[in-house]
Amino acid sequence: MSSPHTYVDIVIVGAGPVGLLLAVCLARWGYRIKLVDNREVPTITGRADGVQPRSLHLLRNMDLKRAIMANAPAKSYEVAFWDPQPAGKGIHRTGNWASCPSFIDARYPFTTTLHQGLIERVFIDDLNKHQVYVQRPWTITGFRNDGQDPKYPVVINLKHVNSSESETMRAKYLFSGEGARSFVREQLNISIHHKDPIAHIWGVMDGVIRTDFPDIKLKCTIHSDNGSVMVIPRENNMVRLYIQIASSTDKDWNPHKQATEKEVQESAKRIMKPYYIEWEHVEWYSVYPIGQGIAEKYTLDHRIFLGGDCCHTHSPKAGQGMNTAFHDALNLAWKIHHVEGGFAKRSLLATYESERKRIAEELLEFDAKYAALFSQRKPTASDVDVASDDHEGASKNEFVEIFKATTEFTTGYGIAYGANELNWTAEHPAQSTLFNPRGSRLRTGRIMPTANVTRVADANKVQLEQEIPLNGSFRIFLFAGIPSLTKRAVSDFAANLETRNSFYSVFQREDVASVSYHERHNPHSHFFSICTIFALPRDEVEIAGLLPAILARYKDHVYADDVWDERVPDAKASAHAKMGLDHEHGGVLVVRPDGHVGCVVGLVEGSGTVDALNGYFGAFAARPVGGKEARARL
Amino acid sequence: MSSPHTYVDIVIVGAGPVGLLLAVCLARWGYRIKLVDNREVPTITGRADGVQPRSLHLLRNMDLKRAIMANAPAKSYEVAFWDPQPAGKGIHRTGNWASCPSFIDARYPFTTTLHQGLIERVFIDDLNKHQVYVQRPWTITGFRNDGQDPKYPVVINLKHVNSSESETMRAKYLFSGEGARSFVREQLNISIHHKDPIAHIWGVMDGVIRTDFPDIKLKCTIHSDNGSVMVIPRENNMVRLYIQIASSTDKDWNPHKQATEKEVQESAKRIMKPYYIEWEHVEWYSVYPIGQGIAEKYTLDHRIFLGGDCCHTHSPKAGQGMNTAFHDALNLAWKIHHVEGGFAKRSLLATYESERKRIAEELLEFDAKYAALFSQRKPTASDVDVASDDHEGASKNEFVEIFKATTEFTTGYGIAYGANELNWTAEHPAQSTLFNPRGSRLRTGRIMPTANVTRVADANKVQLEQEIPLNGSFRIFLFAGIPSLTKRAVSDFAANLETRNSFYSVFQREDVASVSYHERHNPHSHFFSICTIFALPRDEVEIAGLLPAILARYKDHVYADDVWDERVPDAKASAHAKMGLDHEHGGVLVVRPDGHVGCVVGLVEGSGTVDALNGYFGAFAARPVGGKEARARL
Repeated sequence: MSSPHTYVDIVIVGAGPVGLLLAVCLARWGYRIKLVDNREVPTITGRADGVQPRSLHLLRNMDLKRAIMANAPAKSYEVAFWDPQPAGKGIHRTGNWASCPSFIDARYPFTTTLHQGLIERVFIDDLNKHQVYVQRPWTITGFRNDGQDPKYPVVINLKHVNSSESETMRAKYLFSGEGARSFVREQLNISIHHKDPIAHIWGVMDGVIRTDFPDIKLKCTIHSDNGSVMVIPRENNMVRLYIQIASSTDKDWNPHKQATEKEVQESAKRIMKPYYIEWEHVEWYSVYPIGQGIAEKYTLDHRIFLGGDCCHTHSPKAGQGMNTAFHDALNLAWKIHHVEGGFAKRSLLATYESERKRIAEELLEFDAKYAALFSQRKPTASDVDVASDDHEGASKNEFVEIFKATTEFTTGYGIAYGANELNWTAEHPAQSTLFNPRGSRLRTGRIMPTANVTRVADANKVQLEQEIPLNGSFRIFLFAGIPSLTKRAVSDFAANLETRNSFYSVFQREDVASVSYHERHNPHSHFFSICTIFALPRDEVEIAGLLPAILARYKDHVYADDVWDERVPDAKASAHAKMGLDHEHGGVLVVRPDGHVGCVVGLVEGSGTVDALNGYFGAFAARPVGGKEARARL
Repeated sequence: MSSPHTYVDIVIVGAGPVGLLLAVCLARWGYRIKLVDNREVPTITGRADGVQPRSLHLLRNMDLKRAIMANAPAKSYEVAFWDPQPAGKGIHRTGNWASCPSFIDARYPFTTTLHQGLIERVFIDDLNKHQVYVQRPWTITGFRNDGQDPKYPVVINLKHVNSSESETMRAKYLFSGEGARSFVREQLNISIHHKDPIAHIWGVMDGVIRTDFPDIKLKCTIHSDNGSVMVIPRENNMVRLYIQIASSTDKDWNPHKQATEKEVQESAKRIMKPYYIEWEHVEWYSVYPIGQGIAEKYTLDHRIFLGGDCCHTHSPKAGQGMNTAFHDALNLAWKIHHVEGGFAKRSLLATYESERKRIAEELLEFDAKYAALFSQRKPTASDVDVASDDHEGASKNEFVEIFKATTEFTTGYGIAYGANELNWTAEHPAQSTLFNPRGSRLRTGRIMPTANVTRVADANKVQLEQEIPLNGSFRIFLFAGIPSLTKRAVSDFAANLETRNSFYSVFQREDVASVSYHERHNPHSHFFSICTIFALPRDEVEIAGLLPAILARYKDHVYADDVWDERVPDAKASAHAKMGLDHEHGGVLVVRPDGHVGCVVGLVEGSGTVDALNGYFGAFAARPVGGKEARARL
């Protein structure tokens, strides 16, 4: 390779959901990106379209929700089940349930459906604001981690799809978000493990219809004597129908079976009797085979990564594809940022595969279970009543348990990362009796619960978990309880943050002295932001009087825990209560940049609280943190 | 005038808030508009910037709220009061209260502050989507209602500000939204009546500041021994300060008194002691005189109208200017639409002046009271506690009463139009014992209360009062109670709608047979939309089974009143309860296109309910409605 190299931080191949979200994060955090896609234009029709509750919550955290919702997507609050009546009388409704039942603590308890191209457009617009443009139609023709340049070890060859134009560049990372057919994955010889030998052929049709079927604006699963169909409402009066055309369990299985648009419509008409259905317009129709597969590795060298459909394929019925892609990208993005920014050891990157592959495995297991639930067991209205009314302690049955487990998973709130250096458990290298204080309801590896609080500076009622945007920082929530009881603990916390070897001191911004007065989130470091929450009414919180200077510096991140919450109606301080933290003595919650709980520590007088945090961060920090020297300076 | 005329429906002079909102409404409803403004570009800095809670609610109804909020405006939830401490110790906080206390039923209990130019941009973008463009810099040079063309009676001369280019056109209407200096108003010899002889000179400064004043992100009224200042938080870390520079009550009053930017800053620094305040950047600074004035007429001939600042001037302190302008425009827009569309008699236009001038008079009265409240009476913390905790039956005091009354007014929820053909009272020509059924809490002339319900078709939780967008239609809410009790009343209601002379039949769309299957709001008429709300859980509402065909046609406007509401925690059906309608037997609520309650009628078996509505609409309908013939056909 004799041509002079161009250097970028990352080359991303594929501008679908996984590549775009990764690019948006890294572009916002200041990385140089090359993003190529082999299609001439963004997705025009069809494809993935379900944004699950947790994903919408994430998009809000990225300040992209408003742009998504401006497209007036459909919102599915309920799922309805239709089954055959006896004696060929056609279908009737046998039950319905919430897409996101109230036992899940979601801000947006619905599935949002919108054409993938419109969602991509929102990401692309955001990238353009950061001067990142998708290079189309370009593709990757070769790559190698040749190690010749330790900073930019990967050489990548790119080529225009329709001409001989080509580019060669060096990058710190290469990411394949190419979808099911991945050149990068094939070159790496990473095989796909097929979990479930059963294959299916599906027809999918997006269109504008007329019907007297009453649930056409709900997500529906319809079983009839003439076959099954799934109904997904869409934006602009559109409806998506999924129809299973063939399955490898069929007697006359033919893996190349096709069906025309007209055949699928006729089939849908038979299934939906006694209701009529007619198409005014078909926007997209496709027939495609579905298998359950998972890539054996997500990376070989922690320089070249895969994510999204490239790593996992499954049925589209539960609308998980795009959502899993989002979380793959998010998980990798902040880890790259923390490694390249000097906060974390390079070994942190190994947690991308371990965390995300496990979720993909759960997804495939769930997908199989979900399919079985739909095709074997028909829920009845009474099952659903039991499920909806279920409370702690109420009688359980298998159906309800599966329902709860699958709903938690489909909404995205079931994503639970296992024990590792990021998600504290008793096996974590950091040891302190302060971890997991008694009563805490916070589960490490899971999403932080929602909580409403009042921001002291401007008296705005805000969503605490959204107060720190997706800025790549760890979020440190100091639940400070009642100041008359915690005054000393809070001042000790601040004093210990300021000791020389604390994570706070070690990872301070080099430009800390010249940071803008108006910097809200990162006045001290690009790797953490601090929020303080008092169990007081807002009127009684005087920031200058209650907080040491380093905490008061986050003046827009001081809150009063004084908003009533119907989930904890009797709590004296709802946010403290939702976390399971004592409203008098508080506690410290560390949330990873992706919103998952890292660790929870008691708030005590002396150095214990910061010692525990030093131990937590020290497990993956790139530089030594904590230790005796720090304590000696107290 | 020998040149061939161009014909438009309306010429609007001035693309400020009043002209823009009027233009947006009429453009959306299909009218041809000429919109000119004598400025080269939209407002760049300063000017009005407060969007009150009711205005934001209206912008949501116009689907413009999202675009406004995308600019990240400041939201003021609280107002803080600062007063001098004894012995020259500087200011201290003496109280604070909610901008929009909880006794006001607001969806958005805060004031939104955003630079007027950004708000104008949202309207201009919407106009552009309807191929309406602001013609700049153009002005009006003459006009005359010459009556020579009965359809287009007004001749208008327009001219480019900087060239000799000119246009002459004929229009059905001319509207002046020119602001305080109105050519149209002067030509018509409409005088301004000065309510309050006291004049003031104000300085206003928008800028980015640094300060240790803790309430800089709240709306504050600060009195000190060195003068007074009002603080208004803005977008982008900006703060607006209003400083009174002189008053005609001063001993050394000089109506031409000026002050430099520096002088005003020095004055603010003295006022805010013991806190420091420094400017990083001043975006806008202006000194201007304020007087309280009101135009004696809003029109002479009901073809040429005035609105906005052109009709009323007052102090900017309460952030009412733009909001009053919005409501002037809204009030006129739908009345023009109903007259030109053939639904209403031309005399309806007289209610524009009668309704809006009264509000302007209240505004001026309120403005004087508000000023007095700020400058004469300093609220103490205990006053405010009393006000905040005030419940029905609690002890009252004058301060609390003024507080409640003024807050209701400032938020926009106090706008109450008086008795006339649109706002039913006992003096209305329509007489029926069914009007104002017992228990009803609905006050004609006032905004419809908010209510959360479940939309049956798609199970979405929605805001009932927002379900019909600002489409120029009357909103008929059929609160249908419990079907087993109201089945007959509902079917009689439908049958009577279908009688030949009902308002429903008389004002049907001519193209009713060919209206799109997907038309949600106006399948039958451009002048009304119908919603039906059952006091049942959603699961039990089967539209096809419960509703006669004409009501079922509004299939996206059928609701289940099954959402719990903390304002009526014990109600069996919250929306029925909030309206004060019996949850078993329901009632019919007619809301004007601008969201104000027109009339409320009991829902009964037989023709009584529709007879009453025929009477109501008949009072201003352009064609005969109701009468014996209609009943005879039952």
